[in-house]
Amino acid sequence: MATIKVPANVPCPEEDSEQLRKAFKGWGTNEALIIQILAHRNASQRKLIRDAYSAAYGEDLLKDLQKELSSDFERIVLLWTLDPHERDAYLANEATKMLTASNLVIMEIACTRSSHDLFKVRQAYHARYKKSLEEDVAYHTKGDFRKLLVPLVTAFRYEGDEVNMMLAKSEAKILHEKICDKAYADEELIRILTTRSKAQLNATLNQYNNQFGKAINKDLKVEEKDEYLAFLRATIKCLTCPEKYFEKTLRFAINKLGTDEWALTRVVATQAEVNMQRIKEEYHKRNSVPLEKAIVKDTTGDYEKMLLALIGHEDA
Amino acid sequence: MATIKVPANVPCPEEDSEQLRKAFKGWGTNEALIIQILAHRNASQRKLIRDAYSAAYGEDLLKDLQKELSSDFERIVLLWTLDPHERDAYLANEATKMLTASNLVIMEIACTRSSHDLFKVRQAYHARYKKSLEEDVAYHTKGDFRKLLVPLVTAFRYEGDEVNMMLAKSEAKILHEKICDKAYADEELIRILTTRSKAQLNATLNQYNNQFGKAINKDLKVEEKDEYLAFLRATIKCLTCPEKYFEKTLRFAINKLGTDEWALTRVVATQAEVNMQRIKEEYHKRNSVPLEKAIVKDTTGDYEKMLLALIGHEDA
Repeated sequence: MATIKVPANVPCPEEDSEQLRKAFKGWGTNEALIIQILAHRNASQRKLIRDAYSAAYGEDLLKDLQKELSSDFERIVLLWTLDPHERDAYLANEATKMLTASNLVIMEIACTRSSHDLFKVRQAYHARYKKSLEEDVAYHTKGDFRKLLVPLVTAFRYEGDEVNMMLAKSEAKILHEKICDKAYADEELIRILTTRSKAQLNATLNQYNNQFGKAINKDLKVEEKDEYLAFLRATIKCLTCPEKYFEKTLRFAINKLGTDEWALTRVVATQAEVNMQRIKEEYHKRNSVPLEKAIVKDTTGDYEKMLLALIGHEDA
Repeated sequence: MATIKVPANVPCPEEDSEQLRKAFKGWGTNEALIIQILAHRNASQRKLIRDAYSAAYGEDLLKDLQKELSSDFERIVLLWTLDPHERDAYLANEATKMLTASNLVIMEIACTRSSHDLFKVRQAYHARYKKSLEEDVAYHTKGDFRKLLVPLVTAFRYEGDEVNMMLAKSEAKILHEKICDKAYADEELIRILTTRSKAQLNATLNQYNNQFGKAINKDLKVEEKDEYLAFLRATIKCLTCPEKYFEKTLRFAINKLGTDEWALTRVVATQAEVNMQRIKEEYHKRNSVPLEKAIVKDTTGDYEKMLLALIGHEDA
């Protein structure tokens, strides 16, 4: 469930875009007005505002926002204002680049979006970067990470609820064998994780738990520090309980010495309209403090205000 | 270019479906009428006929065709009547099954369809089989074949003409190194073949030829018989000159001791509305005999008539 609050009577896109134009003009930028408008419009409304803005002023709203804003506030407003599929394409592209490389961001997009949404991200990637998402991901990764990541981003998983229990049992066994052998990048293990529907995968992991008396992610927790293994665990978490994965990402971002604003921004901007309600519940449960309180404690200024508006706590 | 001939004045779908119903009734089936109608309608017209038939008689036209027809004629009429994406999904599914398994058929679909069409095949696969194309392909293949085939079927290649010449040069070098090392299933080689746009891949293979004085497929021709290597060559051919690949498939199907009707049917049914004109030209050039003559020599009856109608030679 979404956390943004859209007013009952939304002004027409022309009016919103005129107000935004005003917010940019004159003595200093009116950040409060920008938040008041953009943080309270859904994706299709924001799209119409961008169109109206470009029709009225011949300029891209995003470019003007970029000119007027700065730092973390700029980043969250820009990410938020982008169409969700364009936003994911943008984040994924950024995550393939040298200085901002992040297998985790790419995996998160591949595993937590619906099959149809993931495909639309791939279309948006073509349109914007004139190449395919998978070619960039494959080019910029290697070894075990590539082996797992490329099939994740190219998957078009079946989304029905149908489950084949025989298959769940046999594939749970395969997973267990591979994990016992420490063959964490084995092709059968990767095949199962990257091609099966989420319903089927859930059934398989339940079987794993039933047959072997332990959750798979417990078996994947080994003593030595292994980046790929941590990545594999995160992948399984994203595929089976995305809200727990996002809770953990927020927890680590906030508890870090010096908040990880990129992670905080990414989770809020991508989830505010999707699953943020559940993520907030998980956060409260796990940290004994509501997310909005944690955000107030850790951030400041317009950035803080924007975050709070997006998670539905304007007045925290 | 397509080879089917659609009359200037096509009857309405209701009329066509009524005629087909008549062709099924009475003393024996009227095969000539079935050919006269179905072989001369394009995909969207055939779709409308199926809809009209089901609305008028409460039955699926395909099921009735199946009841009335038999053998090779049945197969080509059924395949032809299917919507192209459903047809590819059907052929791919068949190709994952034990007795009809064929990596070549799956590869052919993955490599010769446009990115958008391939995605529609994956959607049709979900709808019909309640699972994903890639999960069946991955499940039913192994080793090097799987390594190459799964990324081929999941690809969503960029389709623009843009070419990066620096990249073409460097990746031609990578391909050459891997081939020199006989690392035919190397992950870099597979990455290049399965993720790059066809335009980029063509540039890379041209660079290969320029830098190393030989076409890549010449370098892949080794003395010993190696199924995977033949498959790799066919993949490259499909990606770079599909009409030559289809010509060769037809040539082998026809020249075989006992025609390979499945291959002949598949190529004609899938290409008649797409690229058959070019394939016929290639066939004539390479075999010094026009395709229609070769078909007349090798096939008989209604099957022959249907093939000829689809390649635009009703009266050969």
